Amino acid sequence: MGKQFLEITEKKEVEATISHIATEVAKARAKTSTSVEKVNVNEALGRIASADIFSALNVPPFNRAIMDGYAVVASDTFYADENNPASLIINGSIFAGEFPSHAVDKGSCMGISTGAPLPKGANATVKVENTAEYTEVVEGKKLKKVKVYKPVAPGENIMLAGSDIKRGERIVRRGTTLTPRETGVLAACGLNEVLVRKHLTVAIISTGNELIAPGEDLEPAKIYDVNAQTLSDSVRECGCTPHFLGIVSDDIEEISGKLKQSLGSGADVIIVSGGTSAGVGDLLPKVIEELGEIIVHGVDIKPGKPFIFGTIRGKPFFGLPGNPTSALVTFNLFGAPLRRTISGISARNHEEGERRKEKRIKAKAAQRIFSERGRNEYVLVNLVATKKPEEASFLAYPILTGSGAITTLSKADGYIFMEKGKEIIEEGEEVDVELFID
Amino acid sequence: MGKQFLEITEKKEVEATISHIATEVAKARAKTSTSVEKVNVNEALGRIASADIFSALNVPPFNRAIMDGYAVVASDTFYADENNPASLIINGSIFAGEFPSHAVDKGSCMGISTGAPLPKGANATVKVENTAEYTEVVEGKKLKKVKVYKPVAPGENIMLAGSDIKRGERIVRRGTTLTPRETGVLAACGLNEVLVRKHLTVAIISTGNELIAPGEDLEPAKIYDVNAQTLSDSVRECGCTPHFLGIVSDDIEEISGKLKQSLGSGADVIIVSGGTSAGVGDLLPKVIEELGEIIVHGVDIKPGKPFIFGTIRGKPFFGLPGNPTSALVTFNLFGAPLRRTISGISARNHEEGERRKEKRIKAKAAQRIFSERGRNEYVLVNLVATKKPEEASFLAYPILTGSGAITTLSKADGYIFMEKGKEIIEEGEEVDVELFID
Repeated sequence: MGKQFLEITEKKEVEATISHIATEVAKARAKTSTSVEKVNVNEALGRIASADIFSALNVPPFNRAIMDGYAVVASDTFYADENNPASLIINGSIFAGEFPSHAVDKGSCMGISTGAPLPKGANATVKVENTAEYTEVVEGKKLKKVKVYKPVAPGENIMLAGSDIKRGERIVRRGTTLTPRETGVLAACGLNEVLVRKHLTVAIISTGNELIAPGEDLEPAKIYDVNAQTLSDSVRECGCTPHFLGIVSDDIEEISGKLKQSLGSGADVIIVSGGTSAGVGDLLPKVIEELGEIIVHGVDIKPGKPFIFGTIRGKPFFGLPGNPTSALVTFNLFGAPLRRTISGISARNHEEGERRKEKRIKAKAAQRIFSERGRNEYVLVNLVATKKPEEASFLAYPILTGSGAITTLSKADGYIFMEKGKEIIEEGEEVDVELFID
Repeated sequence: MGKQFLEITEKKEVEATISHIATEVAKARAKTSTSVEKVNVNEALGRIASADIFSALNVPPFNRAIMDGYAVVASDTFYADENNPASLIINGSIFAGEFPSHAVDKGSCMGISTGAPLPKGANATVKVENTAEYTEVVEGKKLKKVKVYKPVAPGENIMLAGSDIKRGERIVRRGTTLTPRETGVLAACGLNEVLVRKHLTVAIISTGNELIAPGEDLEPAKIYDVNAQTLSDSVRECGCTPHFLGIVSDDIEEISGKLKQSLGSGADVIIVSGGTSAGVGDLLPKVIEELGEIIVHGVDIKPGKPFIFGTIRGKPFFGLPGNPTSALVTFNLFGAPLRRTISGISARNHEEGERRKEKRIKAKAAQRIFSERGRNEYVLVNLVATKKPEEASFLAYPILTGSGAITTLSKADGYIFMEKGKEIIEEGEEVDVELFID
């Protein structure tokens, strides 16, 4: 019973064909506004930015202190040392979140907390550790003053407005998959909504007279449908939305009806499992030829030989073998890679993501890295891939914007641990980078 | 202003402390039924099985053909060859999903499709390729017959009831994270619901007079809150549910009130960012000491020195620095590992998961592996970790249950590609294993 009429295609050719179709579909999809949606940043984790995102403001929005201490006119502290401290009048103090009501004049200062805006006139912060407060009685009045034991240069211990992110600066590149670092940068810029690509919707249909849905009673000669579950979950793992349309029997009208339904429901991709092998009348190929085009029928792999790929009204169509293992293997080989193309994930982003799925990878220090003496230090680094996917195929650049900067986050791919006692990493030294993933 | 009263603890000691508390919390949690919920298998991807799961039925539920051909009494075909085929009367045929209405007697057979139940009397399937149908006229009546050119042994090309999964067999181990392979096995056993551990709920609170929520208007001296976003998303990446309770100002009553609210909301873990460093009155440590216990205040790492860990009414409490980078680093170091312990992910499962986040890994073949001549073959393998996390630290065992078996799926971690022409992999040979992840 039945006959074989597969024309076996080579795997590489199948991959090239699918990639070509996916690119066409992606282009068509990019032109429609329906492929983009606005979501709350709270729901944006893992989504793909559909356009470049720019900051509408400076971060920080004002010059701010990055140490607890005193906002001063730097020149007042020049030449100060332990034996010859500078003495300044304390003219009030300012906490984070407060706006300074007055300026700092030469000879005076204001107490300031980390994060507070620097008052006018001040151009540096003296760390509290390098000072001592005291009271002086001048003309019968108690005057609060502070001794400064170390000089500061203009700009020291402060962060200038816009030094982290400048108004108008691009903060997220189109095609980037949003991680907590990117959503953090969006938050820093005050954004609570973001334009992302819509999830691809993948219609899934199981065919086979013998199939029953799990949860229902098992009748004689029937078995439970496995592919609806494994394919739906595999689609979810790809970051797409599965839409299971149900089990259909081996009937040309039924299969054709379901396929039309999947097109009507707006599916971006259609997957049917079962009904692909020779025998039982080859229903599926017949239906596809009626509604669209079969491009591949049969591939030189085992398991998975009777694999079908084609298009129905411009939508990629996958006919996977009914056998659960074969279905999963062929989906992983030919279906999963489709997502990147159609979703518009930037290739760099994706490829590096692929190579970064480990929690820890080896890299080479791109330059000398110093650590503070006597501290276990986590040096945030940015990884740049070198050409070959070999060991230590990344260069690790330390991020020098400082831990106060928000952009440190989005630039960082992970961190290098420098244990107490290790104070220098030489350029080219191999390092372990702990990546920012669970 | 302010003073330092951190007592610096070593990082390793902090990790040990957190691990100890997490274990206690996990034990307490395991005793309450509220830590478990029943979900539809469709929503179970990535969830953790809270108990061993057993099959209530045999898979397959009946003896089934695994080839298109003829259901025969094997002994009828013994000694058959090209020159001397066995001749059998075709007594009807049976398709997948149909229940055979009659038995196969010696000298006769039934046409059978892949997946159809084997009729009584038959004990093997002859592949259609090894046969030829013909018509014989006997006493004026046309009789459909088939010539069989190759003998089959009893059991050949059939799958016995329960040979894949036996009724009562454990199909998923408690603590397993459910992938498409496990959900597929649940489906095969007819299960559409599964008991899983509830997601951990993590309450998140931001403190700081200077903070404003993204989306609101920026006032003078204020900045947008970044930590609510990065910590919520990092919690999501850990597979837990964040519950952001809002921004509170640096006020002892407000902070205390929010913490009580987080306890009331049933949070499993509480994270507060900001308010941990010396200065600004050290509000947070004061509040924690009132409501619970501070175990760690200060750790010998940079960034992240002012990190706090403690418990409030038995719940783990994390006080993270307000600085976004420091908050994220300390969460990754100390917060993220908590999930595994409290959620009850089995250690083996987790550890191997960690080491398998790449798409492809090196392994050594645990035994000789053969491929079919002239085919590109994907050999499904199960990985067993050897002791050291070095290269090729996994042994790859080929799965021999055949592609028809459902359990092949849940046993498989990935596949080895044997290109056409490569017919043998020797025991101990290094192989690339493509893992079952996108």
